[in-house]
Amino acid sequence: MSGPVYPVFLCGGSGTRLWPVSRKSYPKQFSRFSGEVSLFQATARRFSGEGFAAPMVITALDFRFMVVEQMAAVEVAPAAVVIEPDPRNTAPAVIVAALMLEARTPGALMLVTPSDHVIADAAAFQDAVRGARASAEAGRIVTFGIEPDRAETGYGWLELEQALEPENRRPVALRSFVEKPDAAHAAELLAGGRHLWNAGIFLFTTTTILAAFKLHAPEILAVARRAVARAEPDLSFTRLDPGAWAEMPDVSLDYAVMEKADNLDVMPFCGGWSDLGGWEAIWREGVPDKAGVVQHGPTTAIACSGSLLRAEAAGQHVVGIGLEDMIVVAMPDAVLVAPRARAQEVRLAVATMKAQGVPQAETLARDYRPWGWYESLANGNRFQVKRIVVQPGGILSLQSHIHRAEHWIVVEGTAQVTIGSEVSLVSENTSVYIPLGVKHRLENPGKMPLTLIEVQTGSYLGEDDIVRYEDRYARKENGAKG
Amino acid sequence: MSGPVYPVFLCGGSGTRLWPVSRKSYPKQFSRFSGEVSLFQATARRFSGEGFAAPMVITALDFRFMVVEQMAAVEVAPAAVVIEPDPRNTAPAVIVAALMLEARTPGALMLVTPSDHVIADAAAFQDAVRGARASAEAGRIVTFGIEPDRAETGYGWLELEQALEPENRRPVALRSFVEKPDAAHAAELLAGGRHLWNAGIFLFTTTTILAAFKLHAPEILAVARRAVARAEPDLSFTRLDPGAWAEMPDVSLDYAVMEKADNLDVMPFCGGWSDLGGWEAIWREGVPDKAGVVQHGPTTAIACSGSLLRAEAAGQHVVGIGLEDMIVVAMPDAVLVAPRARAQEVRLAVATMKAQGVPQAETLARDYRPWGWYESLANGNRFQVKRIVVQPGGILSLQSHIHRAEHWIVVEGTAQVTIGSEVSLVSENTSVYIPLGVKHRLENPGKMPLTLIEVQTGSYLGEDDIVRYEDRYARKENGAKG
Repeated sequence: MSGPVYPVFLCGGSGTRLWPVSRKSYPKQFSRFSGEVSLFQATARRFSGEGFAAPMVITALDFRFMVVEQMAAVEVAPAAVVIEPDPRNTAPAVIVAALMLEARTPGALMLVTPSDHVIADAAAFQDAVRGARASAEAGRIVTFGIEPDRAETGYGWLELEQALEPENRRPVALRSFVEKPDAAHAAELLAGGRHLWNAGIFLFTTTTILAAFKLHAPEILAVARRAVARAEPDLSFTRLDPGAWAEMPDVSLDYAVMEKADNLDVMPFCGGWSDLGGWEAIWREGVPDKAGVVQHGPTTAIACSGSLLRAEAAGQHVVGIGLEDMIVVAMPDAVLVAPRARAQEVRLAVATMKAQGVPQAETLARDYRPWGWYESLANGNRFQVKRIVVQPGGILSLQSHIHRAEHWIVVEGTAQVTIGSEVSLVSENTSVYIPLGVKHRLENPGKMPLTLIEVQTGSYLGEDDIVRYEDRYARKENGAKG
Repeated sequence: MSGPVYPVFLCGGSGTRLWPVSRKSYPKQFSRFSGEVSLFQATARRFSGEGFAAPMVITALDFRFMVVEQMAAVEVAPAAVVIEPDPRNTAPAVIVAALMLEARTPGALMLVTPSDHVIADAAAFQDAVRGARASAEAGRIVTFGIEPDRAETGYGWLELEQALEPENRRPVALRSFVEKPDAAHAAELLAGGRHLWNAGIFLFTTTTILAAFKLHAPEILAVARRAVARAEPDLSFTRLDPGAWAEMPDVSLDYAVMEKADNLDVMPFCGGWSDLGGWEAIWREGVPDKAGVVQHGPTTAIACSGSLLRAEAAGQHVVGIGLEDMIVVAMPDAVLVAPRARAQEVRLAVATMKAQGVPQAETLARDYRPWGWYESLANGNRFQVKRIVVQPGGILSLQSHIHRAEHWIVVEGTAQVTIGSEVSLVSENTSVYIPLGVKHRLENPGKMPLTLIEVQTGSYLGEDDIVRYEDRYARKENGAKG
């Protein structure tokens, strides 16, 4: 066979282990930890080009516009963006993708991958995918195993039927999955030469995986069929049926199918890989100086060792003095400081903040919308300043506010502004005033993004002071900006 | 005698040991470390009211408007604000104050105090001042000695002629000054009961101190006489003569006079006092929880001990996990993390940043001007957003810009705006547009502060794009905003 590989990106996750960069409203896969693109964008690029069909993305409602914007920025067009009404772990996402793919391309070869991992050498991994094809096409479920370079306790491991021969670049039968080991056990696994790290990346045909679900998880398959059959299009998205989805169990692919199946192979991969499961991993993946200090952004490290210093914003300078094995991550709205060995406890900190009602626990200053995004630049008594970016063709809803006046200053691009019954073009360096109570609409009729500064003034500046009259994006959420 | 005490506030310092809160452009004395007022404001309040004349403030050119604004905010009117053309340590400042005071009130009783110390119980210290009067009026130089509660190596100590009797509240003759001791020596001093900490606060008559300078530092006295004789008024300030000042040596009062004089007494004070000489001191002065954690601002501490967590801005949340004896200080533009024991090395970090051209090393986002202040809220490609506060009666210079347009949105108060030849009043929630090249002026004709948001747009947004036509404050500095 010589058909393309159909990539499926699992993109619904919202972990908190990389807070404050990763938040519920803007999770890890969309964040940039190094280089110019996000983990999701790097994933999209890694599995595009020759030999790959357009990818399918399985994501959550809140992330759909980030998916579209980030893929457009790296010029990868999705075949479908599928929206899960609620998060349900990996098994439901994979079977939904398989059903949708099977309907269009029976027997298609699927590559299922998380979109929040780092694989530095994309070409080497594409080679591994090619090396795994024959096995997958022969009806095997191929999982990718990373050759370990340390006794890692943070990953699951894969036990092979036989020790890996040097230079082996072909799939080997899997004997068993090994749960995250303790340190002593991990050292044994590393020494034995018969265990690889479980990367959670799979290659199989739709035929193979549907048969496996039918055998091992028929109830999930049945619910998934209903959720797909009743799915509704929404702009460029496919929304799975919420009624069916409510019955879907929350189960991982490994638990539902993989640990029960007997037709698994492991394709070994010896290039660099990391799941970036926490700040310790970010430190490890960084480029350290002689003292083991990894710096990112405007930082000054004095007499530090074994530490990670990250300043995420250009205008914020981080100074560490005498730090040993510490993590410091600074953003303008949140700062994390912890020993490297305790960085995983950030999850506890996020839960604590959430319980205290601290907005930074879950949300970022920047908010993505169908027409672009906005971020709060400054809040004060009786005023709020926002930067608003409207993508070409983007149209905000026709709206009015009861408690605030708005001032729009166009910084770049040209705005088409409706105020009351008047429509006008507002060009760079000029501004318009929207008195309170007046219906208004903002559009970008141009070919380049429109950037404007919005200054709100008034006694109440909450996002819920909005009356919407018309919304091109037919949004059902209440109180959402724009 | 029963004349008032004339307070003299030394307010020219610009230490870096409390970076990032304290910076060269906005030093420690003007910062708030706890409570509602700055250290300088607390000093002004401490020595006002019954028994005190209006204070004299000796400060630097860059700080003169902060002095005026901060004193106005606590409703203490200065008798004089004296500007040193350059910093010259304490001896020159004290003799200048003595000469100016002697000219108006011969033989006046002067209280000379730094303005960046903490004395929690102001009434108790006023009692100490009263207790020291008779001695000072009899021609003694009285220095205030703090009864120690630990073997502090960070302070100089004062050796008394005789051990301090319990409940003694009268001046005792000084035997000698003790330089900052090492730990073993400090422990001895504490145990001996005959040593107090040197707070650097003095009470003496102008007659006494002039005689002491004449005897021990006649060259400083001579230069000071010239600097005062040729001083020029500038608004409400007195500018010492720069030509004379250039000859002034940089010498501390202790070195120039106190260590040579034989007429010193020590007034003991047993209330709380700290010179807040670094973050360790801020931690010590704080209110710790059971684990010794001091938190300030929006912070979350998980499993921390012996640490200081400070979030200086309302919109910035600081999380510390598993920190032991650490200092974390976060501002939106700068973050410091260091072990408590190494917090003094922040001076080295500031020097390093300065060498690298990092603006946060010396300047804050907020800049004080004769008419009020402004701060940068956001910078981006082709735009800058500022918050501008104009005090009642404040008038910015008549000016124009070649490269930028400006948009002023009034948030609170009423602005009088001149654009070209038109003068108009702009009220809350409304805005005006100043096209590039057009002469404009902003004034606050009202009785309350005027707050506005300025959005600058254009290709070049440097502060030096300004042509000034008229300036009520006759400022000589170039390129200064407003």
